[in-house]
Amino acid sequence: MAKRTIIVFSGDYDRAMAAFVIANGAAAMDDEVTMFFTFWGLSLLRQPTARRRGSAPDLVQRAFAALLPQGLSRLPLSRFNFGGVGPRLMRGVIRRHGVMGLEQLLASAREQGVRLVACTTSMEILGLGEADLVDDIEYAGVASYLADASDAGMNLFI
Amino acid sequence: MAKRTIIVFSGDYDRAMAAFVIANGAAAMDDEVTMFFTFWGLSLLRQPTARRRGSAPDLVQRAFAALLPQGLSRLPLSRFNFGGVGPRLMRGVIRRHGVMGLEQLLASAREQGVRLVACTTSMEILGLGEADLVDDIEYAGVASYLADASDAGMNLFI
Amino acid sequence: MAKRTIIVFSGDYDRAMAAFVIANGAAAMDDEVTMFFTFWGLSLLRQPTARRRGSAPDLVQRAFAALLPQGLSRLPLSRFNFGGVGPRLMRGVIRRHGVMGLEQLLASAREQGVRLVACTTSMEILGLGEADLVDDIEYAGVASYLADASDAGMNLFI
Repeated sequence: MAKRTIIVFSGDYDRAMAAFVIANGAAAMDDEVTMFFTFWGLSLLRQPTARRRGSAPDLVQRAFAALLPQGLSRLPLSRFNFGGVGPRLMRGVIRRHGVMGLEQLLASAREQGVRLVACTTSMEILGLGEADLVDDIEYAGVASYLADASDAGMNLFI
Repeated sequence: MAKRTIIVFSGDYDRAMAAFVIANGAAAMDDEVTMFFTFWGLSLLRQPTARRRGSAPDLVQRAFAALLPQGLSRLPLSRFNFGGVGPRLMRGVIRRHGVMGLEQLLASAREQGVRLVACTTSMEILGLGEADLVDDIEYAGVASYLADASDAGMNLFI
Repeated sequence: MAKRTIIVFSGDYDRAMAAFVIANGAAAMDDEVTMFFTFWGLSLLRQPTARRRGSAPDLVQRAFAALLPQGLSRLPLSRFNFGGVGPRLMRGVIRRHGVMGLEQLLASAREQGVRLVACTTSMEILGLGEADLVDDIEYAGVASYLADASDAGMNLFI
C-alpha cells in the first residue's frame, strides 16, 4: 500500500478541487493518503456556522478570522474570481456536467479513509481553535507531516 | 531511468517557465518526464487560433473559455503582470539574455520525448475539446497521473 | 539520512514561512535539506541594503529589480496583503504568539546546515548578481537541483 501526502496550503476553490480529486483518486487505488491543511488551507476545514465571538483574544487574529472564508462553500477562485461570481459559476458548471463538487469530494475522502490533518502552528497564527474547525479531523504539527512524507512516494504542496 | 512527473495547474507565464525548464533539464538527463496539464494549466496547450464558436454548449463554459488565454504567447505573470505589459517585458529580457523562451522550451520538451498530458476532467469543466488544444498530446484522467506518480522519484505540483 | 528538496518559487511571506518551517523541521530530524530559490523566491535572499545602481545594464531588469522586494522584511502576503499592512499585522501575531519569524527561521536553517541555493538562470532573468544576494549561499542551475531531487524522498514546489 503506497503512501501519499498533500499539503493544502491554498484556500482557493480551484486548488482545493485539485487536491481532493487527487486524494480521492489515490484512496480509490487503496493508497494511504494524508492531507495536511495549513495556512489558508485551514479555511476548507472551518465550520460554516457563525464563529463564536471572542474565541481569539488577539484583535488581529479576529480580523484574519473574519476575512478567512468559513468552509468549502465560500472559497474564492485563484483566477476569475470576480468578487465571488466566478466560483458560483464554476460550481454550476461542475454540477451540470456531473463532476463531483467539493463537498462530495470531502465526504468521499472521509469515507475512503483519507486522513485530514489540521496544522496546529497555522491554527495558532490564524487564531483558530478546534471548535472553529469541522469534527473528526486530526491535529498535528510539521514533525508529524515530515514523518508521513518520509516514507510516502508522492508529496505535493498545493 | 528515473521517472518524474509535474502537474501544471497554473496558467502563469513564470510558473510555466519553471515547469518547462525542470522538464527539459530532466529529459536531458534521460529521465522519463510526464507533464500533466490541469485547470488553468490547460491554457498552455490551447490552440492560438480563434476558437470555434459554440463548441461548448454551456454558456458559462464559453465565458471561461473566452477568459482563458489561448496558448503560450498570451499567458500572464503571477506578479507584476500590469495588464500584460509585465510578461511582454520579461519575454524581451529572456530573449536578450539568451535564455530559452516558452515556445522553444515546449518544442524542446517534445523533441526530448517529454509526455504532455491534458487532464480530461479539467477539459470537461472548462468546456475544452480536443480540437481546442494543440496536436500530438495525450488525454488522461487522475488515475493515469497517479499511476505515473507512484513509481516516480519526483512529483511536483506547479 | 533522508534527503529533501524544496523549490522556493514564490516570493510571498506566507509561502516563505511554510517553506522555512518545513525545512527547519526536516533539518531537526537530521535530514539533508536543500532549498532552491528561483524566480520571485530570490527576493527572500536579497540584500536588504540599497541596491548598487546600474549593476544590471538592462533597463527592464532594473525595473523588475526595483519592484522585487529586498529581503525577508518586505515580502507581501499572497492574500490579504492590503498594500503591506497584512504582512505587518501577521508578523505581529507571530511575534506575540511565540512562533519563530522568518528571519529567525532563516538563521536557524543556516545553523542546522540547510543548503540555500540561488537559481542562476533566474538571477540572469531578473538581473540579480551575487552582490545583490546575501552571503554564504550556493549558486547552481536546474541540473544541480535535479541531481539533488533524484535521490530525495520529498520534493516540494512552493
